[in-house]
Amino acid sequence: MAPAKPVTACILIIGNEVLSGRTQDVNLKYLGQNLNAIGIRVAEARIIADDEATIISTLNQCRAAHDYVFTTGGIGPTHDDITSASVAKAFGVELVRHPDALALLMRHYRPDDVNEARLKMADVPAGASLITNPVSSAPGFRMGNVFVMAGVPEIMRAMFDGIKHQLAGGPPIESKSLIARAPEGALALPLGELQKQYPDVDMGSYPFQRLGQPGVSLVLRGTDEGRMGEAMEKLKAIVRGLGIESEDEDRS
Amino acid sequence: MAPAKPVTACILIIGNEVLSGRTQDVNLKYLGQNLNAIGIRVAEARIIADDEATIISTLNQCRAAHDYVFTTGGIGPTHDDITSASVAKAFGVELVRHPDALALLMRHYRPDDVNEARLKMADVPAGASLITNPVSSAPGFRMGNVFVMAGVPEIMRAMFDGIKHQLAGGPPIESKSLIARAPEGALALPLGELQKQYPDVDMGSYPFQRLGQPGVSLVLRGTDEGRMGEAMEKLKAIVRGLGIESEDEDRS
Repeated sequence: MAPAKPVTACILIIGNEVLSGRTQDVNLKYLGQNLNAIGIRVAEARIIADDEATIISTLNQCRAAHDYVFTTGGIGPTHDDITSASVAKAFGVELVRHPDALALLMRHYRPDDVNEARLKMADVPAGASLITNPVSSAPGFRMGNVFVMAGVPEIMRAMFDGIKHQLAGGPPIESKSLIARAPEGALALPLGELQKQYPDVDMGSYPFQRLGQPGVSLVLRGTDEGRMGEAMEKLKAIVRGLGIESEDEDRS
Repeated sequence: MAPAKPVTACILIIGNEVLSGRTQDVNLKYLGQNLNAIGIRVAEARIIADDEATIISTLNQCRAAHDYVFTTGGIGPTHDDITSASVAKAFGVELVRHPDALALLMRHYRPDDVNEARLKMADVPAGASLITNPVSSAPGFRMGNVFVMAGVPEIMRAMFDGIKHQLAGGPPIESKSLIARAPEGALALPLGELQKQYPDVDMGSYPFQRLGQPGVSLVLRGTDEGRMGEAMEKLKAIVRGLGIESEDEDRS
């Protein structure tokens, strides 16, 4: 049986502040790990400016190319929060004030604090369904295969946890890693040979220095636990055969 | 006089490990800040897999669309290090062993440690010039408007510091920021009005919570110090007028 086509996602990080280096993005790492856990591979990520034409064209490319698109950023109350309006234009629909979103905001703010900038956070593309924001009320939304979430990491995580049951992935993408106490160049050739024997297991090699000594983290990723276990045993035998010390690494 | 067209760059982060969430990228933040300082705006960043066809097509799009492209990752000795070969294909030239790069590697390794995997790090597209790696010898390279650098942050930074004198930017992109002790929704409308008065100053609003209290970092970015100073004075007057406490923020 041929393996099923992998389910893929694109992450779209929207915000000038990430491109200028003001803000360190941490959402991609969270989404990468949590999508892998439900069998969705992040095939690409793009970081783009708060610019309507750019958001529209990038979103339309990415939603056609991937099963899912997850956006972060640009759904707050200020003038530079243009994600919702841009997504509506990308889908060719009106931006409408969602009654449930409006009700959520009216409950969240004291009457004196309600203003038009805040109510803008109830505007979503016509036909969108809301994504709950348990942190600060203003919701995200889903439109087709596009999930529009906040950029603030705490809110993005809470939103993602609320929608992940809607996602249809393949088998979980597992990883196993081994730390070898050697520079990666010492292992590169046999690792490349092993990769050829296991084309269904993705093998990565990530060098580091610790206390002045070179090391390398060898990471196997795939969906078939049996094949991954087999490949890891062979990898350990290779490392042992070269007289290199190693240990299992307990991170993904 | 119409302002000069801004000089733009695309950052291409190449590596499955960033997409899977195994590795937190920190190179974009460094490059964003250091390019802004020499008047180059990072207009987009893409994170892509170690996949030849993807690298070729993405690189060819980005080098046509921007003044500069900076890539990180995929220039080590292992089978998944395919950036150099892919860049050669993108430019339609041969991959050749560079004599100076070969000499660097032969000096760096003990004779017993030289192997074909390591020598692969001397292969660059025909016509490329080398980028010095003061950390671990294996060089990066420049090909046209594309700068190919290592993914390990310490090495990437050293490489960038070595090539930045080759870059022709515009006036430095400065930023000024103000912390206001209020939720951003309280300031959104007057901030939007101020943005309309200063279309040449990019205004961003980044909310946060500190000790349970809402705050917002208001960031002005631009190249004209006089206009930025004027806009900041008006912003402070707006915040003061609303009875909101504020303080200068000493970060970019």
